[in-house]
Amino acid sequence: MNRKGLIIVVSGFSGVGKGTLMKELIKRYDRYALSVSATTRCPRPGEENGREYFFVSNEEFERLIEENGLIEHAGFVNHYYGTPRKFVEDKLSDGIDVILEIEIQGARQIKKQYPDAVLLFVMPPSAIELKNRLIGRGTESAEVIDKRLKRAKEEAVGIEDYDYIVVNDDLDECVQKVHQIIDAAHHAPFRNIDFINTIRNELFEL
Amino acid sequence: MNRKGLIIVVSGFSGVGKGTLMKELIKRYDRYALSVSATTRCPRPGEENGREYFFVSNEEFERLIEENGLIEHAGFVNHYYGTPRKFVEDKLSDGIDVILEIEIQGARQIKKQYPDAVLLFVMPPSAIELKNRLIGRGTESAEVIDKRLKRAKEEAVGIEDYDYIVVNDDLDECVQKVHQIIDAAHHAPFRNIDFINTIRNELFEL
Repeated sequence: MNRKGLIIVVSGFSGVGKGTLMKELIKRYDRYALSVSATTRCPRPGEENGREYFFVSNEEFERLIEENGLIEHAGFVNHYYGTPRKFVEDKLSDGIDVILEIEIQGARQIKKQYPDAVLLFVMPPSAIELKNRLIGRGTESAEVIDKRLKRAKEEAVGIEDYDYIVVNDDLDECVQKVHQIIDAAHHAPFRNIDFINTIRNELFEL
Repeated sequence: MNRKGLIIVVSGFSGVGKGTLMKELIKRYDRYALSVSATTRCPRPGEENGREYFFVSNEEFERLIEENGLIEHAGFVNHYYGTPRKFVEDKLSDGIDVILEIEIQGARQIKKQYPDAVLLFVMPPSAIELKNRLIGRGTESAEVIDKRLKRAKEEAVGIEDYDYIVVNDDLDECVQKVHQIIDAAHHAPFRNIDFINTIRNELFEL
Protein backbone atom coordinates (compact mmCIF):
# COMPACT_ATOMS: atom_id res chain seq x y z
CA MET A 1 0.00 0.00 0.00
CA ASN A 2 1.78 3.07 -1.25
CA ARG A 3 1.16 6.08 0.90
CA LYS A 4 0.30 9.06 -1.27
CA GLY A 5 0.41 12.64 0.00
CA LEU A 6 -2.97 14.08 0.99
CA ILE A 7 -4.26 17.55 1.73
CA ILE A 8 -5.44 17.76 5.34
CA VAL A 9 -7.76 20.70 5.95
CA VAL A 10 -7.94 21.70 9.60
CA SER A 11 -10.65 24.09 10.78
CA GLY A 12 -12.06 24.98 14.16
CA PHE A 13 -13.42 27.84 16.23
CA SER A 14 -11.09 30.70 17.09
CA GLY A 15 -9.51 29.90 20.46
CA VAL A 16 -9.77 26.13 20.14
CA GLY A 17 -5.99 25.80 19.84
CA LYS A 18 -5.62 24.68 16.19
CA GLY A 19 -2.38 26.60 15.73
CA THR A 20 -0.58 25.01 18.69
CA LEU A 21 -1.97 21.61 17.74
CA MET A 22 -0.67 21.83 14.17
CA LYS A 23 2.74 23.17 15.20
CA GLU A 24 3.11 20.22 17.58
CA LEU A 25 1.96 17.75 14.92
CA ILE A 26 4.57 19.00 12.43
CA LYS A 27 7.27 18.90 15.10
CA ARG A 28 6.46 15.34 16.14
CA TYR A 29 6.00 13.61 12.77
CA ASP A 30 8.00 14.18 9.60
CA ARG A 31 5.26 13.10 7.22
CA TYR A 32 3.45 16.45 7.47
CA ALA A 33 4.13 19.93 6.13
CA LEU A 34 2.24 23.06 7.09
CA SER A 35 1.10 25.27 4.23
CA VAL A 36 1.76 28.99 4.68
CA SER A 37 -1.08 31.22 3.43
CA ALA A 38 -0.72 34.44 1.49
CA THR A 39 -2.58 37.45 2.93
CA THR A 40 -3.10 41.12 2.19
CA ARG A 41 -3.38 42.06 5.86
CA CYS A 42 -0.45 43.74 7.62
CA PRO A 43 1.95 41.71 9.77
CA ARG A 44 1.28 41.88 13.53
CA PRO A 45 4.18 42.37 15.95
CA GLY A 46 6.29 39.19 16.03
CA GLU A 47 4.97 37.82 12.73
CA GLU A 48 7.52 37.06 10.03
CA ASN A 49 7.02 37.02 6.26
CA GLY A 50 7.01 33.39 5.07
CA ARG A 51 6.52 31.95 8.57
CA GLU A 52 3.01 32.94 9.75
CA TYR A 53 1.98 34.27 6.33
CA PHE A 54 3.31 35.52 3.04
CA PHE A 55 2.41 39.20 3.31
CA VAL A 56 1.52 40.55 -0.14
CA SER A 57 -0.12 43.64 -1.61
CA ASN A 58 -3.62 43.65 -3.07
CA GLU A 59 -2.12 43.77 -6.59
CA GLU A 60 0.18 40.81 -5.90
CA PHE A 61 -2.74 38.83 -4.46
CA GLU A 62 -4.93 39.56 -7.49
CA ARG A 63 -2.11 38.52 -9.81
CA LEU A 64 -1.81 35.21 -7.89
CA ILE A 65 -5.53 34.60 -8.45
CA GLU A 66 -5.28 35.41 -12.17
CA GLU A 67 -2.29 33.12 -12.66
CA ASN A 68 -4.14 30.24 -10.94
CA GLY A 69 -1.43 30.35 -8.28
CA LEU A 70 -3.85 29.75 -5.37
CA ILE A 71 -5.75 26.55 -4.68
CA GLU A 72 -8.32 28.41 -2.55
CA HIS A 73 -8.89 31.93 -1.34
CA ALA A 74 -11.43 33.86 0.66
CA GLY A 75 -11.98 37.38 1.99
CA PHE A 76 -12.44 38.21 5.68
CA VAL A 77 -12.87 41.68 7.14
CA ASN A 78 -11.43 43.59 4.13
CA HIS A 79 -8.49 41.26 3.61
CA TYR A 80 -7.74 38.35 1.33
CA TYR A 81 -6.31 35.02 2.46
CA GLY A 82 -5.25 32.22 0.09
CA THR A 83 -3.20 29.02 -0.24
CA PRO A 84 -0.32 29.11 -2.77
CA ARG A 85 -0.55 26.14 -5.13
CA LYS A 86 3.14 25.40 -5.75
CA PHE A 87 4.14 24.50 -2.19
CA VAL A 88 1.13 22.20 -1.77
CA GLU A 89 1.62 20.32 -5.01
CA ASP A 90 5.38 19.93 -4.55
CA LYS A 91 4.87 18.37 -1.11
CA LEU A 92 2.01 16.10 -2.29
CA SER A 93 4.18 14.72 -5.08
CA ASP A 94 6.87 13.94 -2.45
CA GLY A 95 4.28 11.85 -0.56
CA ILE A 96 4.00 14.42 2.23
CA ASP A 97 0.60 15.32 3.75
CA VAL A 98 0.04 19.07 3.58
CA ILE A 99 -1.89 20.68 6.44
CA LEU A 100 -4.04 23.69 5.55
CA GLU A 101 -5.43 25.66 8.48
CA ILE A 102 -8.37 27.36 6.75
CA GLU A 103 -12.06 28.15 7.21
CA ILE A 104 -15.06 26.36 5.80
CA GLN A 105 -15.37 28.26 2.49
CA GLY A 106 -11.79 27.29 1.69
CA ALA A 107 -12.37 23.74 2.89
CA ARG A 108 -15.23 23.36 0.41
CA GLN A 109 -13.14 24.78 -2.48
CA ILE A 110 -10.37 22.31 -1.62
CA LYS A 111 -12.69 19.27 -1.47
CA LYS A 112 -14.00 20.08 -4.96
CA GLN A 113 -10.53 20.22 -6.51
CA TYR A 114 -8.97 17.47 -4.36
CA PRO A 115 -11.68 14.91 -3.51
CA ASP A 116 -8.98 12.93 -1.67
CA ALA A 117 -8.56 15.76 0.86
CA VAL A 118 -9.27 14.96 4.51
CA LEU A 119 -11.37 17.58 6.35
CA LEU A 120 -10.85 17.76 10.11
CA PHE A 121 -12.72 20.01 12.53
CA VAL A 122 -11.19 20.72 15.96
CA MET A 123 -13.81 21.00 18.73
CA PRO A 124 -13.53 22.40 22.25
CA PRO A 125 -14.57 20.07 25.10
CA SER A 126 -17.41 22.56 25.78
CA ALA A 127 -18.50 26.05 24.71
CA ILE A 128 -17.70 27.51 28.12
CA GLU A 129 -14.17 26.10 27.88
CA LEU A 130 -13.82 27.82 24.49
CA LYS A 131 -14.90 31.12 26.00
CA ASN A 132 -12.50 30.65 28.93
CA ARG A 133 -9.61 30.03 26.53
CA LEU A 134 -10.42 33.20 24.58
CA ILE A 135 -10.58 35.20 27.84
CA GLY A 136 -7.45 33.45 29.16
CA ARG A 137 -5.36 34.70 26.26
CA GLY A 138 -5.68 38.12 27.85
CA THR A 139 -4.95 39.80 24.52
CA GLU A 140 -8.45 40.50 23.27
CA SER A 141 -11.19 42.92 24.28
CA ALA A 142 -14.63 41.69 25.39
CA GLU A 143 -15.93 43.00 22.06
CA VAL A 144 -13.48 40.91 20.02
CA ILE A 145 -14.26 37.83 22.13
CA ASP A 146 -17.98 38.33 21.48
CA LYS A 147 -17.27 38.59 17.75
CA ARG A 148 -15.31 35.35 17.81
CA LEU A 149 -18.08 33.53 19.68
CA LYS A 150 -20.63 34.87 17.20
CA ARG A 151 -18.45 33.56 14.38
CA ALA A 152 -18.23 30.16 16.17
CA LYS A 153 -22.03 29.88 16.09
CA GLU A 154 -21.96 30.44 12.33
CA GLU A 155 -19.11 27.97 11.78
CA ALA A 156 -20.82 25.29 13.91
CA VAL A 157 -23.47 24.94 11.20
CA GLY A 158 -20.93 23.46 8.76
CA ILE A 159 -19.36 20.76 10.94
CA GLU A 160 -21.14 17.92 9.11
CA ASP A 161 -19.19 18.85 5.95
CA TYR A 162 -16.03 17.60 7.64
CA ASP A 163 -14.79 14.01 7.59
CA TYR A 164 -13.72 13.94 11.23
CA ILE A 165 -14.01 15.91 14.44
CA VAL A 166 -11.46 15.83 17.22
CA VAL A 167 -11.78 17.28 20.72
CA ASN A 168 -8.84 19.40 21.88
CA ASP A 169 -8.88 18.76 25.61
CA ASP A 170 -5.36 17.53 26.41
CA LEU A 171 -2.87 18.82 23.79
CA ASP A 172 -0.63 15.75 23.86
CA GLU A 173 -3.48 13.28 23.43
CA CYS A 174 -5.10 15.42 20.76
CA VAL A 175 -1.92 15.59 18.64
CA GLN A 176 -1.66 11.81 18.72
CA LYS A 177 -5.35 11.43 17.94
CA VAL A 178 -5.09 13.77 14.93
CA HIS A 179 -2.13 11.74 13.66
CA GLN A 180 -4.09 8.48 14.00
CA ILE A 181 -7.19 9.91 12.34
CA ILE A 182 -5.14 11.13 9.36
CA ASP A 183 -3.47 7.73 9.15
CA ALA A 184 -6.87 6.00 9.21
CA ALA A 185 -8.15 8.32 6.46
CA HIS A 186 -5.27 7.08 4.28
CA HIS A 187 -6.92 3.63 4.52
CA ALA A 188 -10.16 4.59 2.71
CA PRO A 189 -10.54 2.51 -0.49
CA PHE A 190 -11.04 5.59 -2.72
CA ARG A 191 -7.62 6.84 -1.59
CA ASN A 192 -6.02 3.48 -2.50
CA ILE A 193 -7.45 2.63 -5.90
CA ASP A 194 -4.01 1.83 -7.34
CA PHE A 195 -3.22 -0.71 -4.62
CA ILE A 196 -6.68 -2.31 -4.87
CA ASN A 197 -6.36 -2.62 -8.64
CA THR A 198 -2.91 -4.16 -8.27
CA ILE A 199 -4.33 -6.89 -6.02
CA ARG A 200 -7.25 -7.41 -8.42
CA ASN A 201 -4.89 -7.81 -11.39
CA GLU A 202 -2.62 -10.14 -9.45
CA LEU A 203 -5.60 -12.34 -8.53
CA PHE A 204 -6.47 -12.70 -12.21
CA GLU A 205 -2.87 -13.52 -13.12
CA LEU A 206 -2.49 -16.33 -10.53
CA MET B 1 -17.69 13.16 23.28
CA ASN B 2 -19.66 10.12 24.35
CA ARG B 3 -18.48 6.97 22.69
CA LYS B 4 -21.43 5.02 21.39
CA GLY B 5 -21.22 1.37 20.40
CA LEU B 6 -20.86 0.73 16.67
CA ILE B 7 -21.19 -2.32 14.46
CA ILE B 8 -17.85 -3.10 12.81
CA VAL B 9 -18.21 -5.31 9.75
CA VAL B 10 -15.00 -7.13 8.87
CA SER B 11 -14.67 -8.89 5.52
CA GLY B 12 -11.76 -10.18 3.50
CA PHE B 13 -10.65 -12.99 1.22
CA SER B 14 -10.53 -16.51 2.63
CA GLY B 15 -6.99 -17.07 3.92
CA VAL B 16 -6.24 -13.44 4.67
CA GLY B 17 -6.25 -14.08 8.41
CA LYS B 18 -9.41 -12.23 9.52
CA GLY B 19 -10.23 -14.80 12.20
CA THR B 20 -6.85 -14.61 13.95
CA LEU B 21 -6.87 -10.83 13.61
CA MET B 22 -10.29 -10.47 15.25
CA LYS B 23 -9.52 -12.95 18.06
CA GLU B 24 -6.38 -10.93 18.85
CA LEU B 25 -8.30 -7.63 18.71
CA ILE B 26 -10.92 -8.89 21.21
CA LYS B 27 -8.18 -10.24 23.49
CA ARG B 28 -6.22 -6.99 23.49
CA TYR B 29 -8.98 -4.40 23.93
CA ASP B 30 -12.09 -4.65 26.09
CA ARG B 31 -14.18 -2.27 24.04
CA TYR B 32 -14.98 -4.93 21.40
CA ALA B 33 -17.21 -8.00 21.33
CA LEU B 34 -17.27 -10.61 18.58
CA SER B 35 -20.70 -11.56 17.30
CA VAL B 36 -21.31 -15.30 16.95
CA SER B 37 -23.28 -16.24 13.81
CA ALA B 38 -26.04 -18.83 13.58
CA THR B 39 -25.61 -21.45 10.85
CA THR B 40 -27.39 -24.51 9.53
CA ARG B 41 -24.16 -26.25 8.55
CA CYS B 42 -22.81 -29.09 10.72
CA PRO B 43 -20.07 -28.43 13.27
CA ARG B 44 -16.57 -29.39 12.11
CA PRO B 45 -14.25 -31.29 14.46
CA GLY B 46 -13.16 -29.00 17.28
CA GLU B 47 -15.99 -26.48 16.77
CA GLU B 48 -18.22 -25.76 19.75
CA ASN B 49 -21.84 -24.60 19.76
CA GLY B 50 -21.93 -20.93 20.83
CA ARG B 51 -18.20 -20.39 20.28
CA GLU B 52 -17.52 -20.64 16.53
CA TYR B 53 -21.23 -20.68 15.61
CA PHE B 54 -24.67 -21.36 16.98
CA PHE B 55 -25.51 -24.57 15.15
CA VAL B 56 -29.23 -24.66 14.40
CA SER B 57 -31.61 -26.69 12.24
CA ASN B 58 -33.20 -25.34 9.06
CA GLU B 59 -36.50 -24.93 10.92
CA GLU B 60 -34.89 -23.02 13.78
CA PHE B 61 -33.11 -20.76 11.29
CA GLU B 62 -36.31 -20.02 9.40
CA ARG B 63 -38.09 -19.22 12.65
CA LEU B 64 -35.30 -16.76 13.55
CA ILE B 65 -35.83 -15.02 10.18
CA GLU B 66 -39.62 -14.86 10.69
CA GLU B 67 -39.27 -13.45 14.21
CA ASN B 68 -36.90 -10.72 12.94
CA GLY B 69 -34.27 -12.29 15.17
CA LEU B 70 -31.42 -11.83 12.65
CA ILE B 71 -29.94 -8.51 11.53
CA GLU B 72 -28.57 -10.08 8.33
CA HIS B 73 -28.45 -13.49 6.75
CA ALA B 74 -27.22 -15.10 3.57
CA GLY B 75 -26.98 -18.53 1.98
CA PHE B 76 -23.70 -20.13 0.86
CA VAL B 77 -23.31 -23.60 -0.62
CA ASN B 78 -26.65 -24.98 0.64
CA HIS B 79 -26.34 -23.51 4.13
CA TYR B 80 -27.67 -20.43 5.87
CA TYR B 81 -25.57 -18.05 7.96
CA GLY B 82 -26.98 -15.15 9.98
CA THR B 83 -26.28 -12.67 12.80
CA PRO B 84 -28.56 -12.91 15.86
CA ARG B 85 -30.00 -9.48 16.69
CA LYS B 86 -30.19 -9.67 20.50
CA PHE B 87 -26.46 -10.06 21.24
CA VAL B 88 -25.58 -7.20 18.88
CA GLU B 89 -28.14 -4.75 20.25
CA ASP B 90 -27.37 -5.58 23.89
CA LYS B 91 -23.67 -4.87 23.35
CA LEU B 92 -24.30 -1.69 21.35
CA SER B 93 -26.47 -0.29 24.13
CA ASP B 94 -23.61 -1.00 26.58
CA GLY B 95 -21.33 1.17 24.39
CA ILE B 96 -19.40 -1.85 23.11
CA ASP B 97 -18.37 -2.13 19.44
CA VAL B 98 -19.62 -5.39 17.96
CA ILE B 99 -17.44 -7.07 15.33
CA LEU B 100 -19.25 -9.02 12.61
CA GLU B 101 -17.08 -11.20 10.41
CA ILE B 102 -19.36 -11.52 7.38
CA GLU B 103 -19.32 -11.33 3.58
CA ILE B 104 -20.32 -8.47 1.33
CA GLN B 105 -24.05 -9.31 0.97
CA GLY B 106 -24.37 -9.20 4.77
CA ALA B 107 -22.24 -6.06 4.94
CA ARG B 108 -24.65 -4.26 2.61
CA GLN B 109 -27.71 -5.42 4.62
CA ILE B 110 -26.05 -4.12 7.80
CA LYS B 111 -25.16 -0.71 6.33
CA LYS B 112 -28.81 -0.18 5.30
CA GLN B 113 -30.15 -0.88 8.80
CA TYR B 114 -27.24 0.66 10.72
CA PRO B 115 -25.83 3.57 8.67
CA ASP B 116 -23.37 4.16 11.54
CA ALA B 117 -21.73 0.77 10.90
CA VAL B 118 -18.04 0.78 9.95
CA LEU B 119 -17.12 -1.53 7.04
CA LEU B 120 -13.54 -2.80 7.02
CA PHE B 121 -11.95 -4.99 4.35
CA VAL B 122 -8.79 -6.95 5.22
CA MET B 123 -6.35 -7.19 2.28
CA PRO B 124 -3.36 -9.48 1.77
CA PRO B 125 -0.02 -7.78 0.99
CA SER B 126 -0.22 -9.45 -2.45
CA ALA B 127 -2.29 -12.10 -4.24
CA ILE B 128 0.61 -14.56 -4.30
CA GLU B 129 0.96 -14.17 -0.51
CA LEU B 130 -2.76 -14.99 -0.19
CA LYS B 131 -2.29 -18.13 -2.27
CA ASN B 132 0.75 -19.13 -0.20
CA ARG B 133 -1.22 -18.76 3.03
CA LEU B 134 -4.00 -20.96 1.67
CA ILE B 135 -1.45 -23.60 0.59
CA GLY B 136 0.46 -23.20 3.88
CA ARG B 137 -2.60 -24.19 5.93
CA GLY B 138 -2.03 -27.68 4.51
CA THR B 139 -5.65 -28.57 5.20
CA GLU B 140 -7.24 -27.92 1.84
CA SER B 141 -7.07 -29.64 -1.52
CA ALA B 142 -5.82 -27.83 -4.64
CA GLU B 143 -9.44 -27.82 -5.81
CA VAL B 144 -10.69 -26.04 -2.67
CA ILE B 145 -7.84 -23.52 -2.90
CA ASP B 146 -8.80 -22.77 -6.49
CA LYS B 147 -12.42 -22.25 -5.42
CA ARG B 148 -11.34 -19.83 -2.70
CA LEU B 149 -9.19 -17.85 -5.14
CA LYS B 150 -12.05 -17.73 -7.62
CA ARG B 151 -14.28 -16.40 -4.82
CA ALA B 152 -11.61 -13.79 -3.96
CA LYS B 153 -11.79 -12.43 -7.53
CA GLU B 154 -15.55 -12.00 -7.14
CA GLU B 155 -15.24 -10.38 -3.71
CA ALA B 156 -12.53 -7.99 -4.92
CA VAL B 157 -15.16 -6.21 -7.04
CA GLY B 158 -16.94 -4.92 -3.92
CA ILE B 159 -14.01 -3.41 -2.01
CA GLU B 160 -15.07 0.19 -2.75
CA ASP B 161 -18.25 -0.40 -0.72
CA TYR B 162 -16.13 -0.58 2.43
CA ASP B 163 -15.09 2.42 4.52
CA TYR B 164 -11.54 1.24 5.12
CA ILE B 165 -9.03 -1.33 3.92
CA VAL B 166 -6.21 -2.67 6.04
CA VAL B 167 -3.29 -4.84 4.92
CA ASN B 168 -2.65 -7.91 7.06
CA ASP B 169 1.12 -8.29 6.73
CA ASP B 170 2.41 -8.33 10.30
CA LEU B 171 -0.34 -9.56 12.70
CA ASP B 172 0.71 -7.36 15.61
CA GLU B 173 0.85 -4.18 13.56
CA CYS B 174 -2.39 -5.02 11.81
CA VAL B 175 -4.32 -5.50 15.07
CA GLN B 176 -3.15 -2.12 16.28
CA LYS B 177 -3.99 -0.52 12.94
CA VAL B 178 -7.51 -1.99 12.96
CA HIS B 179 -8.01 -0.62 16.48
CA GLN B 180 -6.86 2.86 15.39
CA ILE B 181 -9.01 2.84 12.26
CA ILE B 182 -12.11 1.90 14.30
CA ASP B 183 -11.27 4.62 16.80
CA ALA B 184 -10.89 7.17 13.97
CA ALA B 185 -14.24 6.09 12.49
CA HIS B 186 -15.84 6.98 15.83
CA HIS B 187 -14.73 10.58 15.11
CA ALA B 188 -16.90 11.06 12.00
CA PRO B 189 -19.39 13.92 12.57
CA PHE B 190 -22.42 11.79 11.58
CA ARG B 191 -21.52 9.38 14.39
CA ASN B 192 -21.37 12.27 16.90
CA ILE B 193 -24.47 14.31 16.17
CA ASP B 194 -25.44 14.47 19.85
CA PHE B 195 -22.09 15.88 20.93
CA ILE B 196 -22.05 18.40 18.05
CA ASN B 197 -25.57 19.56 18.92
CA THR B 198 -24.62 19.92 22.58
CA ILE B 199 -21.76 22.25 21.64
CA ARG B 200 -24.07 24.18 19.28
CA ASN B 201 -26.68 24.63 22.01
CA GLU B 202 -24.03 25.67 24.54
CA LEU B 203 -22.69 28.29 22.13
CA PHE B 204 -26.17 29.82 21.86
CA GLU B 205 -26.62 29.81 25.64
CA LEU B 206 -23.33 31.62 26.38
